[in-house]
Amino acid sequence: MTPMSIPSNWQLDHIGIAVSSLDAALEQYETLLGTRHYGREHVDSQGVEVAFLDTSNARIELLAPLDPESSVAKFINKRGEGMHHTAFLVNDIQRELDRLITLGWDLIHPQPISGAHGKWVAFLHPRSAHGVLIELCSYKN
Amino acid sequence: MTPMSIPSNWQLDHIGIAVSSLDAALEQYETLLGTRHYGREHVDSQGVEVAFLDTSNARIELLAPLDPESSVAKFINKRGEGMHHTAFLVNDIQRELDRLITLGWDLIHPQPISGAHGKWVAFLHPRSAHGVLIELCSYKN
Repeated sequence: MTPMSIPSNWQLDHIGIAVSSLDAALEQYETLLGTRHYGREHVDSQGVEVAFLDTSNARIELLAPLDPESSVAKFINKRGEGMHHTAFLVNDIQRELDRLITLGWDLIHPQPISGAHGKWVAFLHPRSAHGVLIELCSYKN
Repeated sequence: MTPMSIPSNWQLDHIGIAVSSLDAALEQYETLLGTRHYGREHVDSQGVEVAFLDTSNARIELLAPLDPESSVAKFINKRGEGMHHTAFLVNDIQRELDRLITLGWDLIHPQPISGAHGKWVAFLHPRSAHGVLIELCSYKN
């Protein structure tokens, strides 16, 4: 099937998966994908510990709550472990956020905040994206 | 952050998003990504209508139920619209399924079935993947 349109210039950066135990989930996903994780770190601002696994073109981020009041802990309590967010890498994050605001999108972060691994990040509200929590990210210059 | 390990040779093919109205969701995601959809078709075996949007490195699949008894309709009734599955493109789908069976993974399809757009597809059970419904797919030779 040949696409009939020009692809978006957004890049699918990673899928975030909320898990209860990072150790158990990393073991399972390392076996699944045939690769080792990297970038394991605490993100205290969000009350989570994260780690990444590389596929050939994108990444899987596993997130485990460090704090029972974190949004990831509440997500797991409500819905169980599973897909938590989808992240896109964009060139100019503020321009994209401004564009979406003009279009009436509901944003959690109308301006980017400092994220893990030296990136700017901003989340869009799931109610504007048919239930999907979307993260935009861009490299800090 | 430089990965400390060899990436998986699996490719993130698409993220499947379950939506109630395909027309409404396509309009929103075309605006978000700045691209047009393609490949809209009924997949009668799964009781859904699907369409795709291309990012620069992967795809977004939107799925809307055609049948109230379909698994996607039940998913939306239970959890609302949102991320439904993650699909990886692999070279030899049967070899990967056999490998996972040996490792004790719970598979929905121990052998691939014929999917949309001339691909073989097989789903792994979410209970083996920390709540994530995983699809493997490969090109038919």
